[in-house]
Amino acid sequence: MQRNKFIFSLILLTGLLASDMLFAQGKATWIWYPGDYEIWLGNNMQNRRTERGSFLPPFWKYDSHFIMVDYSKEFDLKEPEEIEIYTEGDYNVKINSNLIHGTPKKLLIPAGKQKLNFKVYAQDRVPALFVKGKTIVSDASWKVTNEDKEWIDESGKVSDVSGTKYLLAGSWNFENPLSPPSKFKLPTEPQAAVSVIKTENSWLVDFGKETFGFVKLHGLKGKGKATLYYGESKEEALGIKTCETLDDLEINNATAKDTTLTGSRAFRFVNIHFDAGINFESVSMLYEFLPVADRGAFKSSDEQLNKIWEVSKYTLHLNTREFFIDGIKRDRWIWSGDAYQSYLMNYYLLFDSPSVTRTLLANRGKDPVTSHVNTIMDYTFYWFMGIYDYYLYSGDKLFIQQFYPRMQSLMDFCLSRRNKDGLLEGQTGDWVFIDWADGLSKKGEVSFEQLLFCRSLEAMALCANIAGDKESAVKYTDLAKDLKAKLFSIYWNEDKSALVHSRVDGVQTENVTRYANMFGIFFDYFNEAQKQAVKKNVLLNDKVQKITTPYMRFYELEALCAMGEQALVLKEMKEYWGGMLNLGATSFWEKYDPNESGAQHYAMYGREFGKSLCHAWGASPIYLLGKYYLGVKPTSAAYAAYSIEPVLGGLQWMEGKVPTGDGDISVYCSTKEIRVKGDTGTGTLRFKSKTKPVSKGNMVRDLGNDMFEMTVEKGKEYVVKYSAK
Amino acid sequence: MQRNKFIFSLILLTGLLASDMLFAQGKATWIWYPGDYEIWLGNNMQNRRTERGSFLPPFWKYDSHFIMVDYSKEFDLKEPEEIEIYTEGDYNVKINSNLIHGTPKKLLIPAGKQKLNFKVYAQDRVPALFVKGKTIVSDASWKVTNEDKEWIDESGKVSDVSGTKYLLAGSWNFENPLSPPSKFKLPTEPQAAVSVIKTENSWLVDFGKETFGFVKLHGLKGKGKATLYYGESKEEALGIKTCETLDDLEINNATAKDTTLTGSRAFRFVNIHFDAGINFESVSMLYEFLPVADRGAFKSSDEQLNKIWEVSKYTLHLNTREFFIDGIKRDRWIWSGDAYQSYLMNYYLLFDSPSVTRTLLANRGKDPVTSHVNTIMDYTFYWFMGIYDYYLYSGDKLFIQQFYPRMQSLMDFCLSRRNKDGLLEGQTGDWVFIDWADGLSKKGEVSFEQLLFCRSLEAMALCANIAGDKESAVKYTDLAKDLKAKLFSIYWNEDKSALVHSRVDGVQTENVTRYANMFGIFFDYFNEAQKQAVKKNVLLNDKVQKITTPYMRFYELEALCAMGEQALVLKEMKEYWGGMLNLGATSFWEKYDPNESGAQHYAMYGREFGKSLCHAWGASPIYLLGKYYLGVKPTSAAYAAYSIEPVLGGLQWMEGKVPTGDGDISVYCSTKEIRVKGDTGTGTLRFKSKTKPVSKGNMVRDLGNDMFEMTVEKGKEYVVKYSAK
Repeated sequence: MQRNKFIFSLILLTGLLASDMLFAQGKATWIWYPGDYEIWLGNNMQNRRTERGSFLPPFWKYDSHFIMVDYSKEFDLKEPEEIEIYTEGDYNVKINSNLIHGTPKKLLIPAGKQKLNFKVYAQDRVPALFVKGKTIVSDASWKVTNEDKEWIDESGKVSDVSGTKYLLAGSWNFENPLSPPSKFKLPTEPQAAVSVIKTENSWLVDFGKETFGFVKLHGLKGKGKATLYYGESKEEALGIKTCETLDDLEINNATAKDTTLTGSRAFRFVNIHFDAGINFESVSMLYEFLPVADRGAFKSSDEQLNKIWEVSKYTLHLNTREFFIDGIKRDRWIWSGDAYQSYLMNYYLLFDSPSVTRTLLANRGKDPVTSHVNTIMDYTFYWFMGIYDYYLYSGDKLFIQQFYPRMQSLMDFCLSRRNKDGLLEGQTGDWVFIDWADGLSKKGEVSFEQLLFCRSLEAMALCANIAGDKESAVKYTDLAKDLKAKLFSIYWNEDKSALVHSRVDGVQTENVTRYANMFGIFFDYFNEAQKQAVKKNVLLNDKVQKITTPYMRFYELEALCAMGEQALVLKEMKEYWGGMLNLGATSFWEKYDPNESGAQHYAMYGREFGKSLCHAWGASPIYLLGKYYLGVKPTSAAYAAYSIEPVLGGLQWMEGKVPTGDGDISVYCSTKEIRVKGDTGTGTLRFKSKTKPVSKGNMVRDLGNDMFEMTVEKGKEYVVKYSAK
Repeated sequence: MQRNKFIFSLILLTGLLASDMLFAQGKATWIWYPGDYEIWLGNNMQNRRTERGSFLPPFWKYDSHFIMVDYSKEFDLKEPEEIEIYTEGDYNVKINSNLIHGTPKKLLIPAGKQKLNFKVYAQDRVPALFVKGKTIVSDASWKVTNEDKEWIDESGKVSDVSGTKYLLAGSWNFENPLSPPSKFKLPTEPQAAVSVIKTENSWLVDFGKETFGFVKLHGLKGKGKATLYYGESKEEALGIKTCETLDDLEINNATAKDTTLTGSRAFRFVNIHFDAGINFESVSMLYEFLPVADRGAFKSSDEQLNKIWEVSKYTLHLNTREFFIDGIKRDRWIWSGDAYQSYLMNYYLLFDSPSVTRTLLANRGKDPVTSHVNTIMDYTFYWFMGIYDYYLYSGDKLFIQQFYPRMQSLMDFCLSRRNKDGLLEGQTGDWVFIDWADGLSKKGEVSFEQLLFCRSLEAMALCANIAGDKESAVKYTDLAKDLKAKLFSIYWNEDKSALVHSRVDGVQTENVTRYANMFGIFFDYFNEAQKQAVKKNVLLNDKVQKITTPYMRFYELEALCAMGEQALVLKEMKEYWGGMLNLGATSFWEKYDPNESGAQHYAMYGREFGKSLCHAWGASPIYLLGKYYLGVKPTSAAYAAYSIEPVLGGLQWMEGKVPTGDGDISVYCSTKEIRVKGDTGTGTLRFKSKTKPVSKGNMVRDLGNDMFEMTVEKGKEYVVKYSAK
């Protein structure tokens, strides 16, 4: 599918709209206005958060789908063809602009050139269409409009002579006409409890590890009330006054009946309190999950590291659902900064592009833009950065072409809020987040925000070019250059040899924090001297405020890896993530402070069990190990060119796979041997060796300073004997 | 209500937000995000159009309500108070920012200062709230936000310190908690048929006059099919292949059952065809209507004119429903240009402000603006003009303050589409309508569009001042002045002494049409010499293309009245509207051409029965007679000052009432006596008399040239003896 998209977008760009040819023999699928189902589903999913029985939806603006949508496609039929029609919502059909009587479920389309139009209306769900004939099938090649008749611009949009602006239809994988998009539910599978402690009117059920889904009470009978108190820890399940989630049940079963709770919850333990007269035989649960395969792999000589990778994988899976969410217990919302990290991990485990685009689209919502994404300034920028990376890893030009106008309007919002110096500071209603850290100042113009803003402008320049908006590409490039220069003229402190945290009332503050400095490294904004200075004065300086969230540990460790500190990072990973494992973690946490003990670990936000014990941002070892140990990363879009720079960082050996849009890249590396194979593009293997490496055909190039390089052609396996340095 | 609103808006302006005080003892009512229910209901209503059984919704962009809304209000309670809570959608409740457990239906609010917040979510309908306690009631004083956290501007918005932008809640008259907004239906009452012609398998039922509602088949029994063919004329009902609306029924009633059709239709005749084996006893219908009282009245010495007024009244009623619609048979849509005329008629018959604001809000929809209202350039301008007039007649400042941002964004859209000369011409996707008239050119820059654009800019200047946006008021005033100057420099042709129709490729066209010229008169854009020239060279010039729609006849006759040609207009009214009556019309038509005959009158748009025989724009005599014969019109907002200038135009006598927001203005005028009384403001009676008029207390002022004037104080009746000239 990904490849099809890419081919299609190229054809689109060269003006040969041969979509009929490409898709004619395809499968029928439910289609919708692109981005709309994602918004609808996102609203529904995010609304499922409850707090002790209360409905607790997000506190930011919700957008809606377009409720009236017109779908169309032209066909040239050799013979008449009957189509079946399924819609979500009221509809009408036109053949060559002639309205057909009634709302037919089946329709005979005559031979010859035929333009079909379906107009579908639905308020409660996305107006979707499924059409299936011998050659006529609804798919992503159909044109779609909400009839906004906007003046046509040049950014990759397809239009007809009437002036209606068309996009191409959105779809996912809904190929059953009787399972329309609005009925979509993630699949479930039964899981048994590991142990149960029973008292007269309560059961404490342990599922052995963090899990997510629907509790099932088998053979439930009697009349009365029951309450289920959920816990990611035993303490939380027992803390019936303070646990974060609970469900109240009214039971009136004369005969025994298996009862599955309707709300999905995150838990390891369930503490069930019930009235006298209520009975049930056993408790299980239905584990709910997104069916997506693990394509990435990692294994090494270090068993603890392997465990860290496995638990990271499970953590990411639990938080990869309809969308990439923050954590499964509490918010279950689509936070752009959290999702951004999941995107990166995804490229090293799942390579599931639909999960990335679904999340990007739900997060962006619709115009007009009246606030930052999730109300957070930094989270707006992570959204742009997410697209930048998505293009690099996937090469999906069509996505950018279709949604470039939404990128523009969000960037216009940012640009309209710059102060007289062209910098962004928090305005009323803005949340400047950065990180959960004690005493972190958000006042004035924070350097970290300008840095992300600058990267976002670079992303806009890239996407403007892809969308064919050359004029804006120049504008964004200039804006980025200008802002980058300001980053140094305003925030760089020569004495401290680092970027300071902020400027307040026109004056540089004294405070140095890690944030802007570590991003500056892997954004490659520093020169080599600055990098080394920042590494010494900030990253490796214990006097600079420490980071306690895995969220920012992600970037801190990435910066260190980018500086070649894999050995140090390996030690840190084992201490930090290993620390959680030592405390019995079965998934990684929202925050971990080794100085805390016991149930202290479960508290956050002033609440006894406020902390999430399964947070997506806890799974970053997947990314770090894939990108900086196996060392695989694309250097041009869609891995057309990529590099493999394995670094053992003290391991005896490691092996693994990194997925791409077109097969995998496999790496084995010990202190003596490197084996690589890539199913895609052209790779460059780079490594250090104390001795001259040996490989079949002697294809290794000596770069000097013990550095060697070798070209990795698609589909071939390479074995190098060397001596790790 | 209207008065309350006005008082409230004044208080708002002076900064004394004493809403609690004003509304504390009020009635609980369902509330919503202002404008949202209007959009939702408008979508639903407009979707009810069918064409021969097919769903036929509008072809313009549909907008949606905000699906997540937060309602709040602060109270200072002397004692604890229990409230009942009803919502449309999922919700949670906070007291002083503390989330309450669960979703309570009743809640005890403690004594003291309490801030209540209700967050309500609904996708399928508008998230609405109804709260009722002893003193706590949901009403239009509650604050409401969709949590867009927009930067607060100064245009009358109420905000709290968190930066959330608040508006005040919208409401209508839904005071029953068990009848929520989404269940709203207009009331109906039974109407009997006047005659039935029966054959073996068909009945032709005549209801005696144009009507609207749901056909009811009494004692329906048997198994098989029936089809109802509706006709505004007998010919249409009998034209089963070409009639515009029909309903197919599948019947399977073992025992006789009264069956009411689910779809509302417009008709006088129903032609029912049914299978053998289907029986029914009789046919009636449920007449569906908006319950709104006739407050205006008109009666005169001319019986035909009285009949014209009565049929106009019935025509307006049929088209005044959930919204002011175009016509009841065919579109049933909210067309801004059509609605604009209904607003004006409304001021002289119903003075139902909620119908005006509902229609304005549904027509405007939401941001972003991506096309003209109804896709028609002129219809965008009528929307602005509608607000201008609404303020003049009602004085409703709060409406303008709340929706000024939507006025701004629509005007920004217009301004962004000006060409290099600052003029508007049709772009791809724009419809330049003007009127249904053969061969009317829409090319280039049409003078009529610039004229309406200019008036719209004047409306913006007025509203900017009301919304406290002084800077923009200056901007809009300057833009309007500049455009007005261009109207004359570009379109005025000295030889023709008139505005020409258009400019194409920079060259003034030769064509003179009535449109810009007649609007120029009652917009008062011409000087006296220009007015007289336009009257002679255009209005009274038979060589200038004639107008055949009541839509533009409205303005043509208004222009003539504004020039003192009431006698001529009376003759025209009697010919044109009288002509329809002579053909048996029971409501006034979309178009009337006296040169046509028989069933030719029913055809339009190339369809045999395409013409609507009950079109709102056919009811303009209501407006003309009220404003230019009884002669009543406001001269400052909300009739604080107004004028009465009765003109008999050849009638022996006339009497009538004109409604205002604060009582009526009554006028009786014969050739010898004038009697007036006003329940509001300060009126000025002006009239011509051959002799010196006599009134009690001699309060008449002589203006010279046989013109006299008298002040009409509120609540007093005045009798003047005079001699009509």
